[in-house]
Amino acid sequence: MVVKTAKYALGLDFGTNSVRALVVDIGNGDEVGTAIFGYPSGDAGILLDPKDANLARQNPADWILGIEKAVPAALAEAKKKLKAFDPAAIVGIGVDTTGSTPLPVDRAGKALALYKEFKRNLNAQAWLWKDHTGYAEAAEITALAAAEHPEYLAKCGGTYSSEWFWSKILHCLRKDPKVAAAAFSWVECADYIPGLLTGITDPLRMKRSRCAAGHKAMFNDKWGGLPAGSFLAKLDPRLAEIRDRLYAKTYTSDVPAGGLTKDWAKKLGLRPGIAVAVGAFDAHLGGVGSGVETGRFVKIIGTSTCDICVWPTSKKLPDVPGLCGIVDGSVLPGYLGLEAGQSAVGDIFNWFVNKVEPGGPKKGSHAALTRKAAALAPGASGLLALDWLNGNRTVLIDQRLTGLLVGMTLHTTPEEIYRALIEATAFGALTIIRRFEEYGVEIRDIVNCGGIAEKNPLVMQIYADVTGLPMKVARSAQTCALGAAMAGAVAAGRKGNGHETFAEAQAAMGGVRRTVFKPNAVRHQVYLELYALYSELHDAFGTKAWSGSLYNVMKDLLAIKDCQRR
Amino acid sequence: MVVKTAKYALGLDFGTNSVRALVVDIGNGDEVGTAIFGYPSGDAGILLDPKDANLARQNPADWILGIEKAVPAALAEAKKKLKAFDPAAIVGIGVDTTGSTPLPVDRAGKALALYKEFKRNLNAQAWLWKDHTGYAEAAEITALAAAEHPEYLAKCGGTYSSEWFWSKILHCLRKDPKVAAAAFSWVECADYIPGLLTGITDPLRMKRSRCAAGHKAMFNDKWGGLPAGSFLAKLDPRLAEIRDRLYAKTYTSDVPAGGLTKDWAKKLGLRPGIAVAVGAFDAHLGGVGSGVETGRFVKIIGTSTCDICVWPTSKKLPDVPGLCGIVDGSVLPGYLGLEAGQSAVGDIFNWFVNKVEPGGPKKGSHAALTRKAAALAPGASGLLALDWLNGNRTVLIDQRLTGLLVGMTLHTTPEEIYRALIEATAFGALTIIRRFEEYGVEIRDIVNCGGIAEKNPLVMQIYADVTGLPMKVARSAQTCALGAAMAGAVAAGRKGNGHETFAEAQAAMGGVRRTVFKPNAVRHQVYLELYALYSELHDAFGTKAWSGSLYNVMKDLLAIKDCQRR
Repeated sequence: MVVKTAKYALGLDFGTNSVRALVVDIGNGDEVGTAIFGYPSGDAGILLDPKDANLARQNPADWILGIEKAVPAALAEAKKKLKAFDPAAIVGIGVDTTGSTPLPVDRAGKALALYKEFKRNLNAQAWLWKDHTGYAEAAEITALAAAEHPEYLAKCGGTYSSEWFWSKILHCLRKDPKVAAAAFSWVECADYIPGLLTGITDPLRMKRSRCAAGHKAMFNDKWGGLPAGSFLAKLDPRLAEIRDRLYAKTYTSDVPAGGLTKDWAKKLGLRPGIAVAVGAFDAHLGGVGSGVETGRFVKIIGTSTCDICVWPTSKKLPDVPGLCGIVDGSVLPGYLGLEAGQSAVGDIFNWFVNKVEPGGPKKGSHAALTRKAAALAPGASGLLALDWLNGNRTVLIDQRLTGLLVGMTLHTTPEEIYRALIEATAFGALTIIRRFEEYGVEIRDIVNCGGIAEKNPLVMQIYADVTGLPMKVARSAQTCALGAAMAGAVAAGRKGNGHETFAEAQAAMGGVRRTVFKPNAVRHQVYLELYALYSELHDAFGTKAWSGSLYNVMKDLLAIKDCQRR
Repeated sequence: MVVKTAKYALGLDFGTNSVRALVVDIGNGDEVGTAIFGYPSGDAGILLDPKDANLARQNPADWILGIEKAVPAALAEAKKKLKAFDPAAIVGIGVDTTGSTPLPVDRAGKALALYKEFKRNLNAQAWLWKDHTGYAEAAEITALAAAEHPEYLAKCGGTYSSEWFWSKILHCLRKDPKVAAAAFSWVECADYIPGLLTGITDPLRMKRSRCAAGHKAMFNDKWGGLPAGSFLAKLDPRLAEIRDRLYAKTYTSDVPAGGLTKDWAKKLGLRPGIAVAVGAFDAHLGGVGSGVETGRFVKIIGTSTCDICVWPTSKKLPDVPGLCGIVDGSVLPGYLGLEAGQSAVGDIFNWFVNKVEPGGPKKGSHAALTRKAAALAPGASGLLALDWLNGNRTVLIDQRLTGLLVGMTLHTTPEEIYRALIEATAFGALTIIRRFEEYGVEIRDIVNCGGIAEKNPLVMQIYADVTGLPMKVARSAQTCALGAAMAGAVAAGRKGNGHETFAEAQAAMGGVRRTVFKPNAVRHQVYLELYALYSELHDAFGTKAWSGSLYNVMKDLLAIKDCQRR
């Protein structure tokens, strides 16, 4: 009997408030060590401006410190668990991050924020995904692209967001000439970290992430990579200049960005030279960690939801309207990565529990409301809600939409409303699924991950009953970090004692939990009746399609609100 | 200087849970003594059937005991306050009651419920206004009237209610042959009490209330009084027989039903023979007590709202569609009494505070939410609600409508929802006002009464800002009992040392408080914008008028709910 020595991969998951390091056995997916490091700067890692609610930045020094703290801690945990564990058995590192989170760097790729003179300048920091300061620039970019390059928008949901790469850079150019002048280039967090670990920080040499470029920077090989210089020049000539200091080629996460530097290896207690994979966004590697493949729909359920799906690049697929993004290789190499999402899911339940505070502190907890809501039959409350309390990402792509609840009587209880809100998010999910199916993307089953999926069986059962599809839950509680670790293993390749393909890594390291939530046919039937009404409200309030549209109602209410709050 | 001796009138206000006696100075309206007696039977005076949620009865013995207890207590209070007070200075008694609250009586007019054999029979008791056991019979009556006598329905809002006289009697006939056989006639509580006090209990001789007959029994001189015997016979031949043991003539409340009997005078410590006015319903005499007159709209705001308006009988007025009732003399003699209403007002605020329990016990009280809601500007929350949590009485007359809230975001607070619910009831009120005006009934100002009007200035200010009309508040906190006392004074007449007309009584005894809530032009303008959206939702969900109607949504939700709860 040959005893095979276990090999491991390291996943680094850079979130909004913290970084997580996860050590995974590449043979069986065992998660042998993990550690979280909370960013010390600002408000839980977010740099805010009391004068501007749109501003949200991150200090890149936090990321560096995070690696130095979290990795050794995760290794220490692994050693504690497994006496035989040897950090030298780690064959590769993968990185997932939030995005679009770009930061300005100098010619050598060093973050401006790390220089003394820029340390306190918010514009020199990383512009966190949820920074909306570039909202005017986003509108400008959208308008120009709609007029001159509609193909740019077709791959990113029809609207260029204030959360994305070019909006942020353009806003910085206009707002802060000093930072603009000092910034040789801009890099996404997903590019910065692998650059850092491999020592390949030169903005012109580093291997940039396909995922970040395709989803946030309108990069597509179809039109020769980044948007045309002439297009960018119309927005601002300096934007066209920056284009030339970015990249012409991008990479999927099976490709190594390089090898771990000696310095970092020493600092972290790892072998020098091990593969560091090209970075990608958290949701996309979360999809990988959840076992995404053709026919399988991955729902990463958190405060909002990110839906990830893949489609073989070799097979034709029309542009699916309403999706957030369609990018070749953003999830798996050789597949189109299809990204959709719901702007609020857990946030809606949290709003009801924490903001409305129904039932007071004891009776109104998630646990208590879930328990009571579980005893209700579908439709028995007479309630129906629209899940648009944070706008609608897919399929309407409209931030200026709001929530709706209909059917209340004097007897309506908090648990009935709570259940109606859960059901609303399920109807929202079904709307996305139907949009995929309508354009030929078959969906066989759904794998869910995230805290709600793990902890709330009622939500999972309602999702199964509403969609009529079995709901599986990813085995790992850390699918993003797990997906990153898979990327590390694949970047190492068979030669580097890793995996040759993502399919191989997923088969070895992934998996779903034993409990599968199967749809109940009777409840599904009732939900289809309710879904017909949901669709009616969806179209009435969310589209202009027909004569009796109430499309104006939510818009007008927001306009009146804006006017009153000005 | 001539010292004029003060004269008084006694108002008796028979409510759902208690009876109130009020002694009023007819010269200046001073309320010198009052007392409440809570009905001892059942659940706070309501006899319930655990097996039938539709059932709500009242024990007539409670009323009798109530008079015996409350009147002496009110007189005692008056004596305590005013040393010179002499019960002999009471010149007349007026009576207002809930309705339709009919009870079966024998040939002599004695309530069957007072006989030993019927004491425990719920069907022999008074059928309280909110008893809905006759819902099937109501539908039957509506259908037959719609087919054969649409004019019957035109005066009572287009639908004959399960809460009303004939529905209840027909249900009793079918349900309880014993009671049906023993009942020589049926009398409304509003007729029973004056009959009792005057000793004229003979069902064929007692002076029946125009208000009760016109609003609840489809009585109208236009078609010769009660509905045709042939019509009633089609529903049940026994109903036609009962018709002949009811009444052919009805009276307004300026008319004395008779004089107080010696027995009652002795028991209560009053002068025998003083005038007892013909009875009327609480809301109608509440309108009188609030100073209703041409051009003035009275809102009696409680858990629901009753709106009372008058129009000179001599002037033409088309049937106003959507009103609950149009009855000549039901409020003031010589005027059409126009009744409208909102199915829930205070109940909606109570629902939010007590059922949803927002903010927990401390932060979520009416007082706390009102304080915070008062700081908000109109429209600043982006919220809009429909006030249909208990259906819609006027102008849609549709119980199968439900509540709606639109515009929520993740930042929406309980006080914003609370304010939106208040505004929704204001928009509902404006819809009623506009319907009146559309048909030529000019409205100059509004007098409000009831606990909310007295205690919540925010509600009053919002009503003023929404309607653009000044909101006055009745001086009396007991406008129903005050209106009854006015009726007692008018029934006494000048000869009996009372008042000759209601106008005279109102001028002397009524009045409004000094604080008038004036509409703010800027806020009114914003509210008109919001009202346009309210109207859009109102018509979309509440009518079938146009192609894009969402009329089905609330109905379908209720149908699904009924199905799931069966």
